[in-house]
Amino acid sequence: MKLYDFKHSGNCHKIRMMLAFLNIEYERVDIDLLKKDQLHPDFVKLNPLHKVPVLDDGGVVLRDSAAILIYLARKYGKEEWYPDDPLAMAEIQQWLSFSVNEVFNGLAISRAIIIFKRDMDLDEPRRIAKDALDSMEHRLKDHDWLALDRFTLADLACYPYTALIHEGELSLEAYPAIRAWFKRIEAMPNRAPMRGLPFPN
Amino acid sequence: MKLYDFKHSGNCHKIRMMLAFLNIEYERVDIDLLKKDQLHPDFVKLNPLHKVPVLDDGGVVLRDSAAILIYLARKYGKEEWYPDDPLAMAEIQQWLSFSVNEVFNGLAISRAIIIFKRDMDLDEPRRIAKDALDSMEHRLKDHDWLALDRFTLADLACYPYTALIHEGELSLEAYPAIRAWFKRIEAMPNRAPMRGLPFPN
Repeated sequence: MKLYDFKHSGNCHKIRMMLAFLNIEYERVDIDLLKKDQLHPDFVKLNPLHKVPVLDDGGVVLRDSAAILIYLARKYGKEEWYPDDPLAMAEIQQWLSFSVNEVFNGLAISRAIIIFKRDMDLDEPRRIAKDALDSMEHRLKDHDWLALDRFTLADLACYPYTALIHEGELSLEAYPAIRAWFKRIEAMPNRAPMRGLPFPN
Repeated sequence: MKLYDFKHSGNCHKIRMMLAFLNIEYERVDIDLLKKDQLHPDFVKLNPLHKVPVLDDGGVVLRDSAAILIYLARKYGKEEWYPDDPLAMAEIQQWLSFSVNEVFNGLAISRAIIIFKRDMDLDEPRRIAKDALDSMEHRLKDHDWLALDRFTLADLACYPYTALIHEGELSLEAYPAIRAWFKRIEAMPNRAPMRGLPFPN
């Protein structure tokens, strides 16, 4: 198995965590977004959207972190993280979409503007980031996990960019339930360290 | 079943289409985003993210169009649109994420800026919209459907905002494969008309 991976990417880190939880060995192919490796024709063939992560499992090529998480959970034995029940699937999907939308456009972009010194306005990403944090705090103040009553792909998809938000110069002081949720995730056995994270390493 | 619905919303239209395909009767609750109905405390209780659509199926309340599509497909009998195979699920999820990300941030936002006269810059949404259209055209130029070899939730999730892009003042002239895909979808039996769409009606 090959993971096309950028070390500072939270989306890639979701897959690194999943592969660690599953004890799957893999070859890491470095795609340095700062050097525009994602625009190299060989990579564009794998993902015309020129984004990481991309997984190559013996010739089965998948893009998009949520899609890769579902594939790995279903194929390699963590089905309980995306169980086969219509309502459970939908509850998890709500947070997979949330991770693509609010978490990425708010938390990840706020961080990217700062660590990669992008010339972009911070106001709108920060506003979305605050909504994202408020929503997670609202859920976690009386639940241990984002969906269902256990760790699922919902938590895995939302964790990395939330845990890296200090790099976006946002404080989690007002979010005790989110900080308690970090501790529950970080106590799980076999968790991948945030290799290459935080930036700069 | 109740659908909290804004008539100009492409995300809501996905659910209207799914319910029509399934022959499910439902009560439509109008949430007029232009009148800020989404900020009413009764609605915020249903969805703290104050977005439509929201589905209430006998007390089971779900937000997020992708989540609602999965729930309806799995519970009411269109499992073949989200089949129980790890790779098929992942291939469909790639496009569900694409619909939340590229399609929404590009196609839907370009349209919203124009039809709702939002004071926002069009350059970035238009750039994302072009990438979204290029990606769909790339796939559809040698496949009939976005994922697998048949209509799935992938097509349903990406169709409405793509079919409404003329309202965003973008042309599909350079995208013949997308236009042919519209015709395949529009020939399906039992399809919901774009009620309330295009804007203004």
